[in-house]
Amino acid sequence: MDMFPASWQGNEQIVFLAYPGMTALDLVGPHYMLASLWGATVRLAAKTRDPVTSDTGLVFTPDITFADMPDRCDVLCVPGAGPGVLTAMQDAETLDFLRVYGGSAGIIASVCTGSLLLGKAGLLDGYRATSHWTTRDQLALFGATPVDARVVTDRNRVTGAGVTAGLDFGLELVARLRDPAYAQMVQLLAEYEPQPPFNSGTPATASPDTVKLVQGMFDNFYHDLGKLGTQ
Amino acid sequence: MDMFPASWQGNEQIVFLAYPGMTALDLVGPHYMLASLWGATVRLAAKTRDPVTSDTGLVFTPDITFADMPDRCDVLCVPGAGPGVLTAMQDAETLDFLRVYGGSAGIIASVCTGSLLLGKAGLLDGYRATSHWTTRDQLALFGATPVDARVVTDRNRVTGAGVTAGLDFGLELVARLRDPAYAQMVQLLAEYEPQPPFNSGTPATASPDTVKLVQGMFDNFYHDLGKLGTQ
Repeated sequence: MDMFPASWQGNEQIVFLAYPGMTALDLVGPHYMLASLWGATVRLAAKTRDPVTSDTGLVFTPDITFADMPDRCDVLCVPGAGPGVLTAMQDAETLDFLRVYGGSAGIIASVCTGSLLLGKAGLLDGYRATSHWTTRDQLALFGATPVDARVVTDRNRVTGAGVTAGLDFGLELVARLRDPAYAQMVQLLAEYEPQPPFNSGTPATASPDTVKLVQGMFDNFYHDLGKLGTQ
Repeated sequence: MDMFPASWQGNEQIVFLAYPGMTALDLVGPHYMLASLWGATVRLAAKTRDPVTSDTGLVFTPDITFADMPDRCDVLCVPGAGPGVLTAMQDAETLDFLRVYGGSAGIIASVCTGSLLLGKAGLLDGYRATSHWTTRDQLALFGATPVDARVVTDRNRVTGAGVTAGLDFGLELVARLRDPAYAQMVQLLAEYEPQPPFNSGTPATASPDTVKLVQGMFDNFYHDLGKLGTQ
């Protein structure tokens, strides 16, 4: 990093939550961006250090437990999941960790349905936030004001929309924690000049049949989520 | 999957390679897309089942070893890395696995500098291919014809450019293995409507200072890579 200006060095403590069934890409997209921060320490926290299996079967080993966290947390980031997030939302230990430890973080952040978990822990009460498009409106069940945007910043809450929004979210956090030039360097390193081969990334652009198929996958999810509302 | 047409079911054997220092996002981006293939089996293969640490410190547990692979492999996908790929390119066991097992795969694929590893194993000889923009030209050292494109398909070789190109690459593979409608569904599930906060994802769009900073990170890499050329 000899060629970097000294002002680009920091010392943030950044913590990602891991839990069974999490969507690996929700974690790894922003992790790539934030791990690029010169001087920052990035940890993967879970209830125990036992391996955690993601929704697509990738297995991650956490490097720190809830009982052993650093005093200071500059960024707490919660990935989303499919059904796994519903289980996490009913886990007292996870909710306590988010409320007590996460609640004191400098920036409290999520990608995808991770915002439902933050909301269930009471951390989005009165905040504007987003989620995966299929569950954005449901944020209101947890005290948040749903916003249709890819990344939503409200004071120290930063939430990203579904899965791949974690990349845009991550770059925005890098710019906030350093400066735009740093984020531009990370974007170039990631060769992030997306060229999706189709134009089907939101319900507004996808065909009605495609929207119906994806929404159909969430029927049971909606049913169970409705029972977890706090408002 | 009750609502899916029966033609959307497959039974592919898909294998991702894991090795120390790999770039986690090179793996997890396309893994998300390919793991969505109804009926496919997606494995993470390594020399042993010991946990593998990626370049940003995320730790993955492989679920299959080189010695225990399924007979048939429909897609072999090799993620890239920074210095880790140079080590892998000098590892006889990894190169043998790629040459013998990978060489018989239906589709031989890579993301980012993974193409250098494919090339070193002799699998890109006479093929058009791409890599991370910083190392694309160096593919010629390994018998490939470098192409400046985000995803390059030449017969059964499919290579993606740097890191985040794995998302576009993954969707293209999904369309090839199923059909465009399936890929569009996966794109919507991934909410893949990218909105990079800056326009700095390629050397053509980034500022000259940014390009210089990123290229500077690769000085040692180029030096070591040059010694590994096969042509």
